[in-house]
Amino acid sequence: MQQLAIYRTQIEEGLQELALDNQPRELYEPIRYTLELGGKRMRPILVLLACDMVGGDGRHAIAPALGVELFHNFTLLHDDIMDEAPLRRGQPTVYKKYNPNIAILSGDVMYTIACQQVAEAPASVLKPVLDVFHDTAIKVCEGQQWDLNFETDEQVAIEAYLEMIKLKTAVLLGGSLQMGALIGGASANLAKDMYAIGVHLGLAFQLQDDILDTYGDPEKFGKQVGGDIIQNKKTYLLLQAQQQANASQSATLTHWLTVESFQPETKVEAVKRIFDALNIREQAEAERDRHYDIAIKTLEALTLPAEAKAPLQQLAAQLLNRDH
Amino acid sequence: MQQLAIYRTQIEEGLQELALDNQPRELYEPIRYTLELGGKRMRPILVLLACDMVGGDGRHAIAPALGVELFHNFTLLHDDIMDEAPLRRGQPTVYKKYNPNIAILSGDVMYTIACQQVAEAPASVLKPVLDVFHDTAIKVCEGQQWDLNFETDEQVAIEAYLEMIKLKTAVLLGGSLQMGALIGGASANLAKDMYAIGVHLGLAFQLQDDILDTYGDPEKFGKQVGGDIIQNKKTYLLLQAQQQANASQSATLTHWLTVESFQPETKVEAVKRIFDALNIREQAEAERDRHYDIAIKTLEALTLPAEAKAPLQQLAAQLLNRDH
Repeated sequence: MQQLAIYRTQIEEGLQELALDNQPRELYEPIRYTLELGGKRMRPILVLLACDMVGGDGRHAIAPALGVELFHNFTLLHDDIMDEAPLRRGQPTVYKKYNPNIAILSGDVMYTIACQQVAEAPASVLKPVLDVFHDTAIKVCEGQQWDLNFETDEQVAIEAYLEMIKLKTAVLLGGSLQMGALIGGASANLAKDMYAIGVHLGLAFQLQDDILDTYGDPEKFGKQVGGDIIQNKKTYLLLQAQQQANASQSATLTHWLTVESFQPETKVEAVKRIFDALNIREQAEAERDRHYDIAIKTLEALTLPAEAKAPLQQLAAQLLNRDH
Repeated sequence: MQQLAIYRTQIEEGLQELALDNQPRELYEPIRYTLELGGKRMRPILVLLACDMVGGDGRHAIAPALGVELFHNFTLLHDDIMDEAPLRRGQPTVYKKYNPNIAILSGDVMYTIACQQVAEAPASVLKPVLDVFHDTAIKVCEGQQWDLNFETDEQVAIEAYLEMIKLKTAVLLGGSLQMGALIGGASANLAKDMYAIGVHLGLAFQLQDDILDTYGDPEKFGKQVGGDIIQNKKTYLLLQAQQQANASQSATLTHWLTVESFQPETKVEAVKRIFDALNIREQAEAERDRHYDIAIKTLEALTLPAEAKAPLQQLAAQLLNRDH
């Protein structure tokens, strides 16, 4: 935990030191604004952590770690336009606070600054690090497009949903670990194992997100519990329920998915009742745990000292809000 | 000319060979569509030409050259959203043909593929090539933002206008030559001279564009002559005229810049009459020629064989539609 706090401080300090007060201010102010909204800095922490874990010199990983955080924030900036999201971390999104053009163009600059930071990786591993970064970036965009498509698709298969969250969320966690490992001098194979750990953690994390949105403790959750149900969001829970519902449950679900005027609490309760009847929560938890277990087992199997693995084990537990 | 045609063929073939038939098709189809709209492929040709010019192996320059062309087309894709441009090369722009979200996200993918191609530069020069590419990319975005700002700015200084077209257009020509030279094994200084040549050619090219829009031969120009005047575009010509106009000319200009309903030909004629009275065309041509001459003199001064310089001299002459 100590170690994770140190990584986080390094990231915050690194972000502070980026020269982001250039002209025209229309481009740079939104970048500073976005970074100052905060966040867990999970992805850059994974870069630093992976570099240390394989015995590398953490100083070499800082710029690429900042690059990954900048990339992540760039995707949020563009995604918020596409998703018409008014708020991000309780504050107006860039396209709302400024305008869509500024969100597009300052996002493009932010992406370029991300590339600059990643390109500060040591020369000896620059090409493999870039390969992972670019491959990850393309997958994240593909995931976002599938997500946009699913909004209007009538039917979304569970496998397609899992592939979407893998691309949109999980591969960037995997890529962060892989990049950090490569920078730290890991073999290509070890770095690939790190990638797999990140992807499975990411899947577990996103499934946990789906579960918490419906079953979270309102006191701890931060967002409105049931928001996904209210918005008809095609989550793992809803897709499983649609697939397993009997005729009567299916009709009830369809009613709530199409009714225009409703009491939010009534809708949430009604849909949850179907989830509960079908044991959807348990199924989602099982799928989440399956990915979590793969990640942990892969981590345990790495031929690295136990103490080197401890920070990632700790972070994984935190990510899934587990107390062990 | 023979040589320039060979470069162009290499670029077209390279673009054809890019694997752009991935899923989801919403992301990849617009990229293919944009590339198939064609264009002069001026920037990638400059990359190949510069590599050859300094005695390098042209094969190493092909992927980065494709990267530059992909980058250029990515900026067009995003710019067309911001500029609300319905047509590009006579065809619907991506945001019109598909929708703005698809234009944003397929643009982001296109930019990433551009980065992948640039990263194929030889390992020995990868970092300096990336530095030029990123620096150029940031400047191009800054230029676009200044251009957007100028649309609503009351006053735009000539110097600010020249800086804007330098950033938006000229630095990418400079960056293309610099990247090609670095890939070809040029010293940092020679590569910087190549950058300067490209920047001044780019400025001359853009000024020529401003001149042709008002004074071009309607038979050869391809676009409506006078389009900039009709749209109140703040070109070098208009900004100079505004600065040099006497009280009566100033009043006439203001009338035409603010009148809502007008006959296009009448407006074009009236504004041209003021340009002519102030010798604006001659001033623009002098500024164009000044940059062209700097480019040519810098090229002549390079300690390279005369035959190595010939293709760039030829291309420069073509760019400015000169016959010599």
